[in-house]
Amino acid sequence: MQQMDGTADTPELEQLYRDFAANDMAPLWTQRDDLMPMTPSPQAIPHVWRWKTLYDIAQRSGDLVPVGRGGERRAVGLTNPGLPGTGYATPTLWCAIQYLGGHETAPEHRHSQNAFRFVVEGEGVWTVVNGDPVAMRRGDLLLTPGWNFHGHHNDTANPMAWIDGLDIPFSSQMDVGFFEFGSERVTDEASPAVSRAERLWAHPGLRPLSGLEDKVSSPLSAYRWEYTDAALREQLALEDEGFPATVEQGHAAIRYSNPTTGGDVMSTIRCEFHRLRAGVSTPARHEVGSSVWQVFEGEGTVVLGDVETRLETGDLFVVPSWVPWSLHSDTQFDLFRFSDAPIMERLNFARTFVPSAN
Amino acid sequence: MQQMDGTADTPELEQLYRDFAANDMAPLWTQRDDLMPMTPSPQAIPHVWRWKTLYDIAQRSGDLVPVGRGGERRAVGLTNPGLPGTGYATPTLWCAIQYLGGHETAPEHRHSQNAFRFVVEGEGVWTVVNGDPVAMRRGDLLLTPGWNFHGHHNDTANPMAWIDGLDIPFSSQMDVGFFEFGSERVTDEASPAVSRAERLWAHPGLRPLSGLEDKVSSPLSAYRWEYTDAALREQLALEDEGFPATVEQGHAAIRYSNPTTGGDVMSTIRCEFHRLRAGVSTPARHEVGSSVWQVFEGEGTVVLGDVETRLETGDLFVVPSWVPWSLHSDTQFDLFRFSDAPIMERLNFARTFVPSAN
Amino acid sequence: MQQMDGTADTPELEQLYRDFAANDMAPLWTQRDDLMPMTPSPQAIPHVWRWKTLYDIAQRSGDLVPVGRGGERRAVGLTNPGLPGTGYATPTLWCAIQYLGGHETAPEHRHSQNAFRFVVEGEGVWTVVNGDPVAMRRGDLLLTPGWNFHGHHNDTANPMAWIDGLDIPFSSQMDVGFFEFGSERVTDEASPAVSRAERLWAHPGLRPLSGLEDKVSSPLSAYRWEYTDAALREQLALEDEGFPATVEQGHAAIRYSNPTTGGDVMSTIRCEFHRLRAGVSTPARHEVGSSVWQVFEGEGTVVLGDVETRLETGDLFVVPSWVPWSLHSDTQFDLFRFSDAPIMERLNFARTFVPSAN
Amino acid sequence: MQQMDGTADTPELEQLYRDFAANDMAPLWTQRDDLMPMTPSPQAIPHVWRWKTLYDIAQRSGDLVPVGRGGERRAVGLTNPGLPGTGYATPTLWCAIQYLGGHETAPEHRHSQNAFRFVVEGEGVWTVVNGDPVAMRRGDLLLTPGWNFHGHHNDTANPMAWIDGLDIPFSSQMDVGFFEFGSERVTDEASPAVSRAERLWAHPGLRPLSGLEDKVSSPLSAYRWEYTDAALREQLALEDEGFPATVEQGHAAIRYSNPTTGGDVMSTIRCEFHRLRAGVSTPARHEVGSSVWQVFEGEGTVVLGDVETRLETGDLFVVPSWVPWSLHSDTQFDLFRFSDAPIMERLNFARTFVPSAN
Repeated sequence: MQQMDGTADTPELEQLYRDFAANDMAPLWTQRDDLMPMTPSPQAIPHVWRWKTLYDIAQRSGDLVPVGRGGERRAVGLTNPGLPGTGYATPTLWCAIQYLGGHETAPEHRHSQNAFRFVVEGEGVWTVVNGDPVAMRRGDLLLTPGWNFHGHHNDTANPMAWIDGLDIPFSSQMDVGFFEFGSERVTDEASPAVSRAERLWAHPGLRPLSGLEDKVSSPLSAYRWEYTDAALREQLALEDEGFPATVEQGHAAIRYSNPTTGGDVMSTIRCEFHRLRAGVSTPARHEVGSSVWQVFEGEGTVVLGDVETRLETGDLFVVPSWVPWSLHSDTQFDLFRFSDAPIMERLNFARTFVPSAN
Repeated sequence: MQQMDGTADTPELEQLYRDFAANDMAPLWTQRDDLMPMTPSPQAIPHVWRWKTLYDIAQRSGDLVPVGRGGERRAVGLTNPGLPGTGYATPTLWCAIQYLGGHETAPEHRHSQNAFRFVVEGEGVWTVVNGDPVAMRRGDLLLTPGWNFHGHHNDTANPMAWIDGLDIPFSSQMDVGFFEFGSERVTDEASPAVSRAERLWAHPGLRPLSGLEDKVSSPLSAYRWEYTDAALREQLALEDEGFPATVEQGHAAIRYSNPTTGGDVMSTIRCEFHRLRAGVSTPARHEVGSSVWQVFEGEGTVVLGDVETRLETGDLFVVPSWVPWSLHSDTQFDLFRFSDAPIMERLNFARTFVPSAN
Repeated sequence: MQQMDGTADTPELEQLYRDFAANDMAPLWTQRDDLMPMTPSPQAIPHVWRWKTLYDIAQRSGDLVPVGRGGERRAVGLTNPGLPGTGYATPTLWCAIQYLGGHETAPEHRHSQNAFRFVVEGEGVWTVVNGDPVAMRRGDLLLTPGWNFHGHHNDTANPMAWIDGLDIPFSSQMDVGFFEFGSERVTDEASPAVSRAERLWAHPGLRPLSGLEDKVSSPLSAYRWEYTDAALREQLALEDEGFPATVEQGHAAIRYSNPTTGGDVMSTIRCEFHRLRAGVSTPARHEVGSSVWQVFEGEGTVVLGDVETRLETGDLFVVPSWVPWSLHSDTQFDLFRFSDAPIMERLNFARTFVPSAN
Repeated sequence: MQQMDGTADTPELEQLYRDFAANDMAPLWTQRDDLMPMTPSPQAIPHVWRWKTLYDIAQRSGDLVPVGRGGERRAVGLTNPGLPGTGYATPTLWCAIQYLGGHETAPEHRHSQNAFRFVVEGEGVWTVVNGDPVAMRRGDLLLTPGWNFHGHHNDTANPMAWIDGLDIPFSSQMDVGFFEFGSERVTDEASPAVSRAERLWAHPGLRPLSGLEDKVSSPLSAYRWEYTDAALREQLALEDEGFPATVEQGHAAIRYSNPTTGGDVMSTIRCEFHRLRAGVSTPARHEVGSSVWQVFEGEGTVVLGDVETRLETGDLFVVPSWVPWSLHSDTQFDLFRFSDAPIMERLNFARTFVPSAN
């Protein structure tokens, strides 16, 4: 054990350190480097999960593990290799593949944790949010913000898998979570093409007079693929026509937003969708906070730190805080992203650094 | 002249009042009743203008008065009979019928005053907002917020008329207005079905990553009728299915909103659209602030104060502050409304009173 | 009568203009210059009122006009010569000298209008705000925000005069005012040196846990001279020591703020206090919105537009919208200012132009 | 290993679980109870540290461990016994006793982490915040918000000890921290009684016109004991006089606030001071989020969960999330508190439950 200036220990100093421990004390000077690094030094590491592997294992879970009360969900979380044993994808975000067999039901419950689902393939499941059945289809983002009851039921004979995103690691480490069981079956087994939330809220720039109070989470439960796709397509078309519309040349992107505030869809989770034209490379970006990406369609690579990895539809990767990332597209390349950026921004820790811009 | 307690004047008192006047002073006690009434006592009065009359006179203006630089617009304002000589519809709001003949152009300019257009019939004109051509069609709301250059050109051989709403009375009385001339002709004579602003912003709940800064006015220049109509139709359908969606039984309504904030489309003007099922009567409402309504479709009546008036498509009426208003529908009854509610709310003067609810 | 392009009238055109008038319509093209000027063109004009004159006339009012219910206040408003007959100092602001004789009482009432008092000389009156007696002393700013009951009583045998500032012109023109009579006498005749509001709120940076909800107006009823004076003194001392603290060289200033938000003390009225060292000239400033100033102490001049006027303690002057103003100090020069800046900022009309800075 | 419904394992199931592990996956159903408990289930436990013990050990550190660059501070953190090895007092908050010998200097640095100091005894040290020397005296709260350079120097021959509070655990777990070394010695060795920040900002309700932009952290570096004490004394006096002023009978409290917003002093840390009259018991409160308390003066007890502990001046205790706490005073009982409440409120996880109130 060393002193602050590195000189050798004495018996008195050894006794001091024993007394620290005995009295539930810890000197800063031996920990400062770890606790207060020069730049964010996450234990989480960049990592890629293959959709084919995830899907295969989820499917086997479907055969072997019944879904039901207690376990609640047949969801298998992506565990960051740098955070072994935690089940966390990042220090704030949980991400899982969830699998529901034909005609299965995941029972209703609610919790403080904010949750969403994103569908990279398949259809046939309805998630029922506070009694409102919401169809899940390819390319859709479906929200179940904190403390909304929700269950899922598969209205077809075919299985369906999708990804879940939640702020479980944040809520678990920060001790903020409450949980409550609900109905064993979903409270409304109808299977409408459009949810009631959409019928009230999915009209661009229009707000129902019966819904004038701002809500902390978006009241719009479903963001449909056709709108996302159209928004991205128009950005690229406008760029072609010579008008500012994209984030950078060849890179279209939208943020899913809460129509009552214009802000993020939930207090802790930001959701975005990015589209690169073929042959585009984005500059390396360092960002405070972590994110998880899923390839929706197309082919390309991601560079995380120094490592480039080829990606295919459904593949997921995680970007820990301040690890530089860049994307490179071989074809038109569509990716869904979610991150903890609202946490970083609301608490004033957000920072971005793009070396090529400096 | 009377003292504060009503006693008779004396020579000293008469001299005092003369000295008030001579020194640019005015005693409160002789004015308090007028300046500080028990409830709002507007000089503006409730009034109804007939669309047929307005249109006929606007058409004659089209024949007789060329549009061009200087006068700028062939717009004829509705003058509240209680505010003679002002050209004001209310103390805050200006409302006009604007008429543009076939192939005519209203030159570009910009001003601090916030403006919109609402189209009750016709089509064929494009309003060009900061160089972005925006088609005007029946049922559309088109925005030209303060300090955006804008001009209009008629791309057809047929005339078109619509209503303009601005905060001219407010800006004129409060001395806030700047004005600047622009191009003699519109800067982009294209006639696309959809404006660039819509292509960027008219996707429900989606925000371009290139547009993350909040804007004081809505960046969405056009609110199309098909969306408004759908939103209202869904509210009534949800009501039929037993779910809360309408303002009150049989009364659907939307507020046009700024997608970057969820708030009003412009700092001073609120825009709404209301739909009553046939046979609905709304309770009398007193509201601080004034509004102007236009019937879009259907038949019914409005009661303003004690006077009931039958209304037809295109008819306009004004509701001064605190004058009770209620609507009664004979058919499905669609009405556009604009008001100064953002002023009242931002300055904390808003109040509503519904006698039947008390 | 002229056409938009200045050509001569025809019988048809004359009939058209008659029909405009007969149908409560007013063409924009004949009014545009007036309604939408190139820069704000206030009817209000710059003007100076002498405190000696005001005080003398107020004193005579004290001898001749009893204060009491109905007239409510022995307050004599400063009428802008450009707004004759209105009693308005500016289109938004009312400013009066109020005079209360020894042992007189101004009865309690409340109104939507926001009000304050500022004391340029004297003491001995308590204003009772919602039952809380607030001493009025030289240099103090005392608030009675909208809808707070308030009355005044003179606890001494000597008269006292001060200025009142209200948003009466705004509320009157915009039809937002409500009024209610209260007690004939003040509801608490105590004369404490410090009000209860100050005891709760006048601790720098400290907020009572019993008062965590934000309030639209400041809950701090009294801003005492000793704090204002100290704040200004420190700014100038810091400037002397080489640190940034003043608005510009030799010009210290504070804004009175609402401790629950950091914002303006009331929704419509901004209050500030300015101190110039001897020999300072401020650059000419154009500002959207109007303000009223009162000299508190010292000697100097104001330039309003092109006219320079020498000022003494108590003198008041008004700056209409966009009229350039600058101050020049012969001695240390202290001035109180109030303005309608919160209206301009909340409605996004604020603009400032300093020619020398361009 | 169990299935979701508790049935026995099969070889296929065992293989599945091995494949989860091999592919960086973790099933939710085996973890849900831990990750998503019914109510917050912190690993941190309630704990009390004795000031006498802390001070004695800090003093020995002063004799044995030199302060200087690298270790940076002679600060000894309170380690929650439920979070061994972490140095964390709670999952979000770090709390230490810092000790500076006569004429010692702790070198300047800056970091993203928000920090404050609170002084329970002693004086003689100046903390220099961005070059502004701030005296530290008994009862004072001193801020060094994120990314402000700061160092400390002892201007006397006597040692001084105080507590530091930071959001190190939050920033470390969430990977948000940056760190930068500054001057070896403080950049201004002056020892003024009042800092420049106070001279600009410590005037109740007054804001310098040179400081109108809102700041994410309070610009007021020092909250002096005389103001805190006066605010609490007045609350109790007002209560005695029959007016609402306290949180509950006999319990006065203030929140330290950012004068530019009225909000918390820093984005992640709330600071409060509480005073109980002798003989007061507060009801048990459950709150989401954690806090640390220090007794400033007086005697009493705290009940944390089911355990009551007697407290003396300087003693510190920690309240993990949702652990009920109540205070009981034998004498007038003064306590300083800091918590992560801004995190909970900004991310919408705040909840409070007072069983006796239900």
